[in-house]
This record gives sequence, C-alpha cells and structure tokens, in this order.
Amino acid sequence: MANSASGDSAVDRVVRLLAAFPEGTPRLPLSDLAARAGLPLSSAHRLVRQMSDHGLLDVEEGGAVKPGLRLWELVSRNAPTLELRTVALPFMEDIQQVLRQNVNLAVLDGPDALFVERLSRPGSVVNRATVAGRLPVHLSSAGLALMAFQPREVQAEYVARQTLAGAVPEDELRLRLAETARNGYAQLVGILDPDTSGIAAPVLDPRGHAVAALGVVVPVTEVRLREIVAALQAAAQGVRRGLETLRRA
Amino acid sequence: MANSASGDSAVDRVVRLLAAFPEGTPRLPLSDLAARAGLPLSSAHRLVRQMSDHGLLDVEEGGAVKPGLRLWELVSRNAPTLELRTVALPFMEDIQQVLRQNVNLAVLDGPDALFVERLSRPGSVVNRATVAGRLPVHLSSAGLALMAFQPREVQAEYVARQTLAGAVPEDELRLRLAETARNGYAQLVGILDPDTSGIAAPVLDPRGHAVAALGVVVPVTEVRLREIVAALQAAAQGVRRGLETLRRA
Repeated sequence: MANSASGDSAVDRVVRLLAAFPEGTPRLPLSDLAARAGLPLSSAHRLVRQMSDHGLLDVEEGGAVKPGLRLWELVSRNAPTLELRTVALPFMEDIQQVLRQNVNLAVLDGPDALFVERLSRPGSVVNRATVAGRLPVHLSSAGLALMAFQPREVQAEYVARQTLAGAVPEDELRLRLAETARNGYAQLVGILDPDTSGIAAPVLDPRGHAVAALGVVVPVTEVRLREIVAALQAAAQGVRRGLETLRRA
Repeated sequence: MANSASGDSAVDRVVRLLAAFPEGTPRLPLSDLAARAGLPLSSAHRLVRQMSDHGLLDVEEGGAVKPGLRLWELVSRNAPTLELRTVALPFMEDIQQVLRQNVNLAVLDGPDALFVERLSRPGSVVNRATVAGRLPVHLSSAGLALMAFQPREVQAEYVARQTLAGAVPEDELRLRLAETARNGYAQLVGILDPDTSGIAAPVLDPRGHAVAALGVVVPVTEVRLREIVAALQAAAQGVRRGLETLRRA
C-alpha cells in the first residue's frame, strides 16, 4: 500500500481519523478532526470524503463528521465480542432484575478492563463503565477479577509494568490480586466514586483463566455482599457453560 | 490517497476486507477472505498485516482472520446509534419483562430496517432480527413502522424503486404503508416465520417522522394485541422524550 510523504500508510490515516473521536464525542467539525488526527486539513478532507463514500464516516448537513452507520453495521454484525455478549446478556438481565443496579461485562485488553456491555436503569448509582470504555485494572473490580485469573506470566508482566510506571505500589497490587484469586471475586469500595462499590466475578475457561468478568456497581451502603457475589458467580457459571456449548457446536 | 493498479483506493480495499465477513461468520481463513474481498492473496496478506498492526483485524493462532477488538472499541464508543440505544434500552427491558418475548429496535437505512438492538431470552420464539442485521422494509413490522412515517418524498421513492424491482406489488405496498400510518403501528403475521408475528411502533421526531421503531416478535397464537401495541407506543413516547431531552442538553 502506498505511503504518504510523511511515511504513514493509508491504513494508518484511516485509523488516526477513527481514533480521533474522543469517547462520548460522536461528532466533530472537520477542522477539529484533522487537528486531533494530526493530518493537514486538505488530506483530512480528501480522506473523509473517501471514507464517507463508503459509509465509514457520515458528514452531517452542518459539516460535522461522525462514525458511519455502515461501519457500525460491518463491525457489529461480526464483533469479536458478539458471542460473549449474546451468551451473557440474559444472565445480566436476570442480575439487574434482582438488584436494580448497574450490571456490566468486561474483557481484559492489556492493562485495562474493556467494557463490552452495560445495563443501567434510571435511578442506578453512578457507573464509570461505559460500553467500549476502559478502566485500568487496578481501579476496577472487573479488571481485578480478570487479572487475578490470568496465566502466571501475564500477571507477572502486568505487575512489572505497573510497578515501572509507578501507578500503584507493587505490594498493594500483588495483595489485591492474591485476595481476589483467593476469594473468587473482586470488590472495590469507593475507589472511582466515593458513593459506590464495584463487585465482579470472573467467567473462567476450562483451564481456569478468566475470559470475561461480570460485575455490578452498587451504592456503598449496599449490605447484601454475599447474595451479590452468589448471584454473580452463578451467572458466571451460566455464561461459561453457554460459551462451551457454542464452541462445541 | 494512492490507488492500486486496479484503480481502487486503499480505503476501498479496507472496506472490501471488512465487508467480506458475512453476517454470523466472525472468522475466516485468509484465502477465503481474499477471495470474498476480490483481492489477490498477496495484497490481502499485506493489508491484513497492516490492519492487524492497528487492531482493525485480529489474526488468530491458526491463521484465521477476524474483526479486531480495537476496531470494535473505536466504533462502539462513538457509534452513531449510541444515543438511541442508550435511551431505548431501559424501555426495551420493561417491555421484555412484561411480555417475555423478543424486543427489538431498528432504524431505517435505504430500503431496509437495520436492527440496532435486540433483547432475547431462552424460550423466546424465533427472531430473524439480529443486532446489525437487516430486513427489507416490506418483510418486517419494524420496517413498515419506519417507512410509513417517512416524509412523503422518501416514501414515494421507496415505493417506485420496489415496484421497479418487482419485489412487491405496488398496490399491496401502498396499502400496507397506509394502514400502518392510520393504525400507528405495523403488524405482520407469519411472514418471515409461519409461527411468529411481528408488531412494531414508530419513535417519532417533533415533525412526526420516524427516527426508530420499537418492535416485538411473538408467537402467532399471542392474543394480547391491544396490550402489546399500548406498551410499544408508550415506550416509543418515552424514547422520544428521552431523545429530545438529550438534544436540548
């Protein structure tokens, strides 16, 4: 594929444009988009036109640019998270019906929990986990539940990098991960928001490694910890069984 | 952006690769992918490598290619359907709790209903509407509910094209659209599946045009038509109000 004068490929530039939309900002003026993507306005203009011809971007009447419906369709109909989400959603709805609070589903991506789905209702407490949003492992119960059940080498590399970055004291991180592994669930009280607690349980594969985490965000005043953990762990077993059935099919 | 010998741009080729995954086929061997995208194996190989470097595609251990987690994240965190879905989801859950059947949410895209969300439970009847899947307007209650509440010129163009394509007799199409507009909802009995009925109501904007449709798929033996329509229309009002609040914010 041909490269531009600056040496980046067309694929680079497509990715830079798509990545230039900050989370929660579904539309941007062309000039902002070009600046955020680090592209000259003329190149950005040409690329936006090409991408909108294919529905990867949509240009609104006022000139604002947004990710396109066709791109959403292409990605969503075969999303890498589709199987997991399809299997987990009924279990998430069950949990939500019982607790009437936020329920979320996450996978591990590098040092972050990447949230695949979230069910929320008006009146639920604040929940920082948005769909396709990320939270660092050490700041989210879902992240801890995922990392505590990774192969030894993945966990070691994560701890080494975090320690190097100085984000969290190594001892504290190790302690939290060990505690989560021992308990079979993770709980973080008032970390992201002083009024809420996060509780999450891993969905394990046959080797005992976490492929996902099911979690809830509840008020810190919530006292039903045992019931919540039992509900999450039962649901996680159901998701595991559902995934295994799919893989065998 | 530079074009290849065949005259297509890099953006063309990226789109052709992404579009080459058929619905419900989240992974393909590279050779199949190249063939489906109409690309020489060597070009496909190079492009897949570039795209996987950026997380637009993932290459599995066995060599199968699938849409990448990073692409899903970039698209989903600012999806063009995100606001609609966020506002509609609690209403969809309410309907599902009452009816215990499939609930779906669709937007109009050309001559199709494009499904943005679906809630399904084990034991629900067959539902052809999958997330990011399409159904032709004349074969889906959601499609009829969307088209019956479009501006006159959009409807006229649709009817003219369908008539030209010979898909449906013009009279029948006009009749169905008029009936849907008069009733305020669409119902199709046993069209896609002999054992199921689809019922859908439009979510209207302030000018009375449908921006979405909320629908259910129920057994043909379901007798609570009035209750279902009332529930859908009430939910559609709620979604409309939610969208207006968002737009004013």
